[in-house]
Amino acid sequence: MPSERIREHAGQGATTVAAHRRRLRADRARQLADLLRHQLLTGGFPDGALPHEAAIGADYGASRNTVRQALDLLRAEGLVERQPGVGTVVVARKYPHGLDRLMGLAETLHEHGRVTNEVRTMGPVPAPVPVADRLRLPVGSDVLYIERLRRLNGLPLSLDLTYIPLDIGTALLEADLESTDVFRLLEATTGQALGHAEITLEAVNADAHSAAVLQAPRGAAVLMLERLTHLADGRPVDLEFIRFRGDRITMSGLLRRRSL
Amino acid sequence: MPSERIREHAGQGATTVAAHRRRLRADRARQLADLLRHQLLTGGFPDGALPHEAAIGADYGASRNTVRQALDLLRAEGLVERQPGVGTVVVARKYPHGLDRLMGLAETLHEHGRVTNEVRTMGPVPAPVPVADRLRLPVGSDVLYIERLRRLNGLPLSLDLTYIPLDIGTALLEADLESTDVFRLLEATTGQALGHAEITLEAVNADAHSAAVLQAPRGAAVLMLERLTHLADGRPVDLEFIRFRGDRITMSGLLRRRSL
Repeated sequence: MPSERIREHAGQGATTVAAHRRRLRADRARQLADLLRHQLLTGGFPDGALPHEAAIGADYGASRNTVRQALDLLRAEGLVERQPGVGTVVVARKYPHGLDRLMGLAETLHEHGRVTNEVRTMGPVPAPVPVADRLRLPVGSDVLYIERLRRLNGLPLSLDLTYIPLDIGTALLEADLESTDVFRLLEATTGQALGHAEITLEAVNADAHSAAVLQAPRGAAVLMLERLTHLADGRPVDLEFIRFRGDRITMSGLLRRRSL
Repeated sequence: MPSERIREHAGQGATTVAAHRRRLRADRARQLADLLRHQLLTGGFPDGALPHEAAIGADYGASRNTVRQALDLLRAEGLVERQPGVGTVVVARKYPHGLDRLMGLAETLHEHGRVTNEVRTMGPVPAPVPVADRLRLPVGSDVLYIERLRRLNGLPLSLDLTYIPLDIGTALLEADLESTDVFRLLEATTGQALGHAEITLEAVNADAHSAAVLQAPRGAAVLMLERLTHLADGRPVDLEFIRFRGDRITMSGLLRRRSL
């Protein structure tokens, strides 16, 4: 944590000494929380308990107050809890979803447990114009619409809205969607591997209804993934809007400075 | 939008007909909101105004109530506003940050405007143990710590916490951090291109202090990026924790099914 040597830049406008101190303390708590979050998410506390506050303070060169405030931030995020007589324990796990390769949820999380899908809605619908455009279908075509609540080891993980061209989608109507990724079904149905997907990620606050479905608090941060997946031959076959619970998923990948 | 033909799956437990209808309406509003969001974010309404509710309803096969509820969702996200006599207008812009190549903020957003950086804190600090580990420094080394509030065209975009080994960082103490990406400064200082970065993305609710710094509502969804950047020779030189305002940034990229 920043020592007293650090040079603080004056903010805009005048602040009182007390306000300045509060800001410094909050800044330091955030720095420490970020470092502890990384440890949490990467299994840095394998026995599930964090060290005592004093030990954290010593490791990170932080005051007891800063340690407490940092732990408060992690508790507000639902990552840790304070247990009387035990200390601070890790309560939430975030699961890593790869950003390096196009994979379905069950594929990417297979080592973390079993993905099950509750199909909330499934059936043909007239494609809205932008859906028809993106799936390169004539306006007025029907598409297969699927809405799934996806769970990992029984815990709600994501709410997925999926549009698939009907010539491919029809075969999915009788498939085992409860326990199979759509990606696998698309490859089995078309006899072709998937090629690539264009993705967009956003952080949004969950609306009341989405939060209820995901069993998350209203306004909970959601990692929203929009993904248009193409077959190996380039045809777009799967448009998805996926809301991941922010407290249960991370997306990890590797970026290069120069393109390969 | 799903027509009456669609097959609805029974949820868990009994629901009244009225509750079922409410759920259907909420589900349809979400579907429509997701489609409209895509149009919004990709410049699909170039004059800044959305079509009339009736026209949206016709385009998307949605009822007037569903259209209203979808627009309410987008308004709650801060993307649109209703203006008397005008209709629904686009008020927020989200800026696309690439996920395909390792780039600094000013680089990636150069066509959208000018990035400026308010340096809130800068100076050498003793590296906390996990920072020393990740930057492959001896425990007890000092690192350069930088905290910046970054703006695009004057609007707060992200709060960045940065750790850099001191042998490289010292040169940055006198550099123009207000208007230059750290990436560019690292390449200029080391005479070496950057190589790759390991990144992790999460959606989190902003704590009170981070929200205040970013001028966002408390609890606002934040896209959190943790990034460890290496020089071309493999040395890790830049550990960053970046909180992007969820309502101002999207991350886009392309995933492939098979690795190249």
